[in-house]
Amino acid sequence: MTDDNATLILHALSGVPMVRQGDDLAEIILLALDRVGLRLDDGDIIAVAQKIVSKAEGRLIDLDTVTASPRAQELAVDADKDPRLMELILAESQDVLRIRKGAIIVRHNLGLVLANAGIDQSNVDHSDKTLALLLPLDPDASAQRLREVLRARSGADVAVVIIDSLGRAWRTGTMGTAIGVAGMPGMIDLRGLPDLHGRKLETSELGFADEVAAAASLVMGQADEGRPVVLVRGVGYNRREGTAAELIRPKHMDLFS
Amino acid sequence: MTDDNATLILHALSGVPMVRQGDDLAEIILLALDRVGLRLDDGDIIAVAQKIVSKAEGRLIDLDTVTASPRAQELAVDADKDPRLMELILAESQDVLRIRKGAIIVRHNLGLVLANAGIDQSNVDHSDKTLALLLPLDPDASAQRLREVLRARSGADVAVVIIDSLGRAWRTGTMGTAIGVAGMPGMIDLRGLPDLHGRKLETSELGFADEVAAAASLVMGQADEGRPVVLVRGVGYNRREGTAAELIRPKHMDLFS
Repeated sequence: MTDDNATLILHALSGVPMVRQGDDLAEIILLALDRVGLRLDDGDIIAVAQKIVSKAEGRLIDLDTVTASPRAQELAVDADKDPRLMELILAESQDVLRIRKGAIIVRHNLGLVLANAGIDQSNVDHSDKTLALLLPLDPDASAQRLREVLRARSGADVAVVIIDSLGRAWRTGTMGTAIGVAGMPGMIDLRGLPDLHGRKLETSELGFADEVAAAASLVMGQADEGRPVVLVRGVGYNRREGTAAELIRPKHMDLFS
Repeated sequence: MTDDNATLILHALSGVPMVRQGDDLAEIILLALDRVGLRLDDGDIIAVAQKIVSKAEGRLIDLDTVTASPRAQELAVDADKDPRLMELILAESQDVLRIRKGAIIVRHNLGLVLANAGIDQSNVDHSDKTLALLLPLDPDASAQRLREVLRARSGADVAVVIIDSLGRAWRTGTMGTAIGVAGMPGMIDLRGLPDLHGRKLETSELGFADEVAAAASLVMGQADEGRPVVLVRGVGYNRREGTAAELIRPKHMDLFS
């Protein structure tokens, strides 16, 4: 981050239509930008809600097509959840870390520690079916694909961050969190940089893409706002091929799960 | 958050001088705003780095004045820290949660779970002394005092958030985190609000002030930038007397420490 990055602007794009499987997200984003007279510039970051990425990728599951295993049925009682939803949670997860009424915290196959394996039943476009929306299979790859199409069509070297709202161990409330990143760092390593007094910094690693995700989440809204795309302009970053996986603490370094 | 809050602007204020004990932070902030031609409006949020609040409040300790207890000496060996620093960490903390070479995670007297009890040795204005900077004694009260003086002098109904960079349990990198809040919510409870399809939201609590803190942290910088004050404009919020304490998960609800 350099001195000319002292002003940051976030534009949440309204009027993004309901997204369905197979939709072209890049096209949807470019149209939404165009509608408000914005054009992508080099260094811009496009923040996208996980929900529309998952929907475009067909990650919506009809619970009637799911058969709960005996283990899912047992844990569903402990957590007070639909056994078919529990089956999906277990299939998406490496480990169950904590379970109690209303809550199950897992280590997702992607390495993320989160509630319900990130499976969502709100803001899911359902008719009379009971639907569940899973995380994208590989959100870093989803971000990379979206970045490439946005670059090709706009000519601008933009970064992409895919955002979900995740809980924290010791703090209340969810935070917008980066689950997919392309074209910018996930984590920034400051080790070796001097502070104002020339002393080596003790805080050596920044959760960069998570801070971008949290900022975008502020204007994205959670409830009935429907602004799943945010243009983030003015953040200085090194244009390297970072990932959201960089932000996941390796299991052997995890002191708390 | 309402529909007119779709654009968020953050201005990091440069040229803030080194802060010393007894300095008038409100005056420093208003001068820095004036220098770049900005005036406070109702609904603006002033984000302030914890370091300058602590310095103004005289929380800088000369380690030569500290005597390490036997327990501090013992834990200092385990964590590979200065025994006098360890004495301060223990005095600031309710519990030691995890300890290993180079790292000690505690539950601070304020309830925050963090490394080194939030005590900082970087960006501390020291001569030949070895100094440590403690968190403010009561950051919510510090935020409230600053808000009142800013309101009185500017006439604008502004909120204040005091920010520190905290680590997370399962993720790498620190995040700008709200340790003091005044004039806005810490946590926002969305329970009962409908989503786009009229379904009740499952994600019911937002870490609002932490998202503001993370956004401000992006432009504040960590290393040698020296921009400890950020004006956050365009976030919609309910102007209630919230606190950062709302963001601390009560010990009996904590599944992970």
